[in-house]
Amino acid sequence: MEEAIIRKYAKLAVCSGANVQKGQLLVITASVHDAAFAEYCAEEAYKAGAGKVAIRWNDDTVTHLAYQYESQESLCRVADWELARKQDEIDQKACYLYIDSEVPGFFKDIDADKMQKATMARRKKMKPYQAYTMNNIGQWSIVAVPSPQWALKVFPDKSEEQAQEALWDAILQSVRINRTNDPQAEWERHDRQLAEHCRLLNSYQFDYLHFTNGLGTDLKVHLVKDHIWAGGGSTTPSGVFFNPNMPTEECFCMPDRDHVDGTVYASKPLSLSGKVVENFWFTFKDGRVVDYGAEKEKEALANMLSTDEGSKHLGEVALISYDSPISNMNIMFFNTLFDENASCHLALGACYPENLEGGPDMTEEEVLAHGGNSSVNHVDFMFGTQDMDVTGVTFDGRRVPIFRAGNFVI
Amino acid sequence: MEEAIIRKYAKLAVCSGANVQKGQLLVITASVHDAAFAEYCAEEAYKAGAGKVAIRWNDDTVTHLAYQYESQESLCRVADWELARKQDEIDQKACYLYIDSEVPGFFKDIDADKMQKATMARRKKMKPYQAYTMNNIGQWSIVAVPSPQWALKVFPDKSEEQAQEALWDAILQSVRINRTNDPQAEWERHDRQLAEHCRLLNSYQFDYLHFTNGLGTDLKVHLVKDHIWAGGGSTTPSGVFFNPNMPTEECFCMPDRDHVDGTVYASKPLSLSGKVVENFWFTFKDGRVVDYGAEKEKEALANMLSTDEGSKHLGEVALISYDSPISNMNIMFFNTLFDENASCHLALGACYPENLEGGPDMTEEEVLAHGGNSSVNHVDFMFGTQDMDVTGVTFDGRRVPIFRAGNFVI
Repeated sequence: MEEAIIRKYAKLAVCSGANVQKGQLLVITASVHDAAFAEYCAEEAYKAGAGKVAIRWNDDTVTHLAYQYESQESLCRVADWELARKQDEIDQKACYLYIDSEVPGFFKDIDADKMQKATMARRKKMKPYQAYTMNNIGQWSIVAVPSPQWALKVFPDKSEEQAQEALWDAILQSVRINRTNDPQAEWERHDRQLAEHCRLLNSYQFDYLHFTNGLGTDLKVHLVKDHIWAGGGSTTPSGVFFNPNMPTEECFCMPDRDHVDGTVYASKPLSLSGKVVENFWFTFKDGRVVDYGAEKEKEALANMLSTDEGSKHLGEVALISYDSPISNMNIMFFNTLFDENASCHLALGACYPENLEGGPDMTEEEVLAHGGNSSVNHVDFMFGTQDMDVTGVTFDGRRVPIFRAGNFVI
Repeated sequence: MEEAIIRKYAKLAVCSGANVQKGQLLVITASVHDAAFAEYCAEEAYKAGAGKVAIRWNDDTVTHLAYQYESQESLCRVADWELARKQDEIDQKACYLYIDSEVPGFFKDIDADKMQKATMARRKKMKPYQAYTMNNIGQWSIVAVPSPQWALKVFPDKSEEQAQEALWDAILQSVRINRTNDPQAEWERHDRQLAEHCRLLNSYQFDYLHFTNGLGTDLKVHLVKDHIWAGGGSTTPSGVFFNPNMPTEECFCMPDRDHVDGTVYASKPLSLSGKVVENFWFTFKDGRVVDYGAEKEKEALANMLSTDEGSKHLGEVALISYDSPISNMNIMFFNTLFDENASCHLALGACYPENLEGGPDMTEEEVLAHGGNSSVNHVDFMFGTQDMDVTGVTFDGRRVPIFRAGNFVI
């Protein structure tokens, strides 16, 4: 992909995504193999007035070696300085940009239990700092760039170079960038449209949503009282608007963690700790997963579910028309950032307090008391289909068609 | 360069350089642009039994942006977690591998004073931790890999690809690697030869060395009493042998910080904080630089000298035959690791306590009391020439020719 258009993307990520403010610290997380894009982002951030740009580099090849060779004790060790670093970033009111280029299945040969224990140990230690982004106290944004190996997974019939170019095309299209337009203006328009959709859903204050389709999904998801449908950008308490996900097509809300019943069938694979889980399903009773299955990598699912109690309950429900821009590309990205925007999805694990009136100002216990969910995990999975029907049921028993045959009709 | 030979080099760096021990933490410092080589090093370290490999990535392009855009205050800030991280490494008895691919002159457009203040602030904060490597308490090693831009500086008439290949050839030759040999065995032989040279120099216990050549150098460098000439590998207090520099051809010793007199002319440029200082000289009186000059980048020199009092005194004197393997390649590397091994050199700034009997067990004050030098800097510069004469003078006035016409004759 030509440099000029990639720079345009970097500027979009920094300005419309993280929306770094004058003098602010921007922390970028990136793979060493995406150094060129990370450098563009750093430059655009400084040009936009960032006070400092710090890059936290990672390298999955080295991480893979660590999982191969290190003891469980060594893998689970989280040093105090790592927590101090996070606290230092928060004290400085940092914003975050995550550059994702994860290769699906990269860790598939690693013992799932060993990985899960290491991930859990880290997440537990990091949990006190999670609210900073989960509650939108500081801005954060996730964008993706195509690693060659990821591109080959998405386009297995192409050469490495062609595959990477094709994935660049798909990514840039999904984030509304082309050679001639002003993508920041496009995003302002897009954010307004999503906000209008949310306003409409909020006006009903549904008791629950009823999902049914031909795969066998029959699921009732109750929403917490005083829920807020959100979509597109978010706003920090100090009034800075930002886009946590680029792309995003969803309107999402907070399920009542103890009032979800029925069975849901996933409609797309799930990339989980480097494994690809396929054809899986969950049965919920009183909000809790009581049964589940998967044709491939069931163990990865089992490990995730056993992380903590919150991992067995929902934290998010999101609506996306089957006829959405990303869905219409008809590409399986093997990456949640894209695939979740091609289909209605649910998330097991932590809820977003912004989906509850006054949520961001509540303690974790208060959010839980309102029916929100807490976990070190937040795992999105897709279940939307072309024949999905969604009906909203109000407290006075009124049934409102939200989706018919996969698309918004409300 | 073919992968097999680069892996051979990675193994040499990890096993003969840092000599990582079973269960030990290895901390690798590397540019994100050298990820492939760093990954090989990590793999070889784990195969050799390392308990953990941590990589501290850097990216000069991002550092350059920081110098361009950040305030002096921001550049000088060293966070407490950075010190805690270093202490954590030391507590774990880590060893270090530094992978160098610095592009000479990369920061030449940056304000020298701004850079110097930032470097000084960082070094001052890091000084308490410096002894861990300077005193060889833990193993450490520096190796180099050719960045394309560095290679083009060394071979300006070649294409980027040819230049990088030529620099690979020169580096691998300098560290005694070829397609068929066992470089680890070569290094054992080489280390034994350097040790024999040092043994001979130590047996004289010279009062001072007298350097003269046609460039105008006429310098008397007194050595501290009970000095130790060292060269090749070093040994930690716990008995682990390692090679701090790869390549290395030098025998080096500790000058008496207050007894250096005369003038010395540099014979090669000096790459300093990303600037290339050319044709420079120093005049010493009672060990202190009292006058100096440079045809290019004198300001960078001035900034370095003004860092602290110790930067104006010598901390190291090193002898290398003009007819040495690296010298014979007749390549100007613009990198101290190589150029210092092509020529006799001196260093302004911190001394190495290992060059003093009992030095590694002394406090900094005790080393100073013995005539050693202390500084946040340690800046090597080359002054050896084809016509260099070096005469050793003993305390009873005996004059021993050490070098005649550039080469060892002792």
